[in-house]
Amino acid sequence: MSGLRELLMVRPGGTRLADIDPRSTPGLPGKRVVGGDPKRWSQTQVAEMSEELNTYQERLFASAKEGGTNRRVLLVLQAMDCGGKDGTVRNVTQGMSPAGMKAVSFGPPDEQERRHDFLWRIRRGLPPAGHVGVFNRSHYEDVLIVRVHNLTSEDVWAQRYEQINAFEAEETADGLTMVKVMLHISKEEQKKRLLARLDDPSKHWKYNPGDLAERARWEDYQRAYEDALNRCSTTAAPWYVVPADRKWYRNWAVATLLRDAFADINPQYPEPDFDAAAERAKLLAAE
Amino acid sequence: MSGLRELLMVRPGGTRLADIDPRSTPGLPGKRVVGGDPKRWSQTQVAEMSEELNTYQERLFASAKEGGTNRRVLLVLQAMDCGGKDGTVRNVTQGMSPAGMKAVSFGPPDEQERRHDFLWRIRRGLPPAGHVGVFNRSHYEDVLIVRVHNLTSEDVWAQRYEQINAFEAEETADGLTMVKVMLHISKEEQKKRLLARLDDPSKHWKYNPGDLAERARWEDYQRAYEDALNRCSTTAAPWYVVPADRKWYRNWAVATLLRDAFADINPQYPEPDFDAAAERAKLLAAE
Repeated sequence: MSGLRELLMVRPGGTRLADIDPRSTPGLPGKRVVGGDPKRWSQTQVAEMSEELNTYQERLFASAKEGGTNRRVLLVLQAMDCGGKDGTVRNVTQGMSPAGMKAVSFGPPDEQERRHDFLWRIRRGLPPAGHVGVFNRSHYEDVLIVRVHNLTSEDVWAQRYEQINAFEAEETADGLTMVKVMLHISKEEQKKRLLARLDDPSKHWKYNPGDLAERARWEDYQRAYEDALNRCSTTAAPWYVVPADRKWYRNWAVATLLRDAFADINPQYPEPDFDAAAERAKLLAAE
Repeated sequence: MSGLRELLMVRPGGTRLADIDPRSTPGLPGKRVVGGDPKRWSQTQVAEMSEELNTYQERLFASAKEGGTNRRVLLVLQAMDCGGKDGTVRNVTQGMSPAGMKAVSFGPPDEQERRHDFLWRIRRGLPPAGHVGVFNRSHYEDVLIVRVHNLTSEDVWAQRYEQINAFEAEETADGLTMVKVMLHISKEEQKKRLLARLDDPSKHWKYNPGDLAERARWEDYQRAYEDALNRCSTTAAPWYVVPADRKWYRNWAVATLLRDAFADINPQYPEPDFDAAAERAKLLAAE
């Protein structure tokens, strides 16, 4: 276990985003360990962890075979635009098999989704037993953009913090391990990344003119995030704030949080329901 | 384009599996090109293609944004037990983002699935627009294991070849590009791999005592495969037989087939619906 969780975990009521420097690198070992090049060191660590994550994923998958357990892992990523959600997903899942994953992006709800409770589509998006899920945005949008833009009345969204906690408690009691991560970038870093998008035609498809209007509400979003983080960081499903201006730190931190979550679960291959020696003999005896 | 498709494609009516050596490496360049080490050369090629596939996947995803196109790619993998389906999936998708993928394994149909036509669960498993799908087993099981074990009467399964062709023609006309691959291993190679599974406790979960009964029906399966390949290799959705005793060749061949399919589609980033220079100016003018 790395101890990183302790450093990044949101203590209910006590977290102010303004106090967390998006360029900081909490938990990164000292200069001697990283050999003067923390970026390179982190990338090597991520490559190594990717092997570990691969093995953990296979064991989780195997342990759930034929109804063995309902264990599932879910990485939830929230961030302002350009916060690095896509890049993080790509990076931390590089060692995993798509056969054991379920990645879902939550955009504005469609017509069918709007006819249901806000958690309806979330439940449908949860990973099945033995799988690793990734949420790119999540039910937290329903207390973020919805709140900032008054998409529902306050008495509706204000109840959702408790509803989210109840939902997450129910699912974690049913075998779900949630790793909830807010990628915390600075307003300056967002500007840099938006400019980079505008300057690269192969990135135009990721740009939306509405992004500028959202950016203008930066402070409102930060307050909405703080409330979500502080009210919904529970023992069962804590929130982590990962400083994300430096991509290499962000990747290292999220991979580490995921690896530590798996280490807690420590999924095991199931006991075989056959006699390997006897099967071996049968196989050799046959053609 | 590599020309590999021409070499591995099933010509309707003309393919006998016994004529294809599972240890052969068709299409692999000569000794001079591979520098005396075809395994290493193939692995380097796969790593390079993985970058290409990554870019193609992103472009496909981007091109389908907001209803742009209904283009989708589907890799279908069929093989005898231990044929290497899992390993192939893991290997050829290593560069891709899980956010744009949909990987589905088709085991024995469950109760709900059995109440529907055999193509019902297949349609539900298809990749959405802009996504890359992977089928680990597929609707072809319904003319393979179903036929070998008489799980339906012959007049039912015998009609399925035409039903499959109609279904695939319909979907390919609707933007689906199918890359259908049979991983062709020898009976000796299967024995080796089954023994390896039995000798490695971390692989026991992949072993099923029923595998030996299936192995005993090897010839029946080969005949069922030949019929499926010959009857369902169409211009719209051809079958490829990939010799698969050598894993490095198999990985190289499947990655190449997939890359060539993408090169045909050549998905493009969509034209922006905004003026990048104007957005840039607005962004710089604001805080």
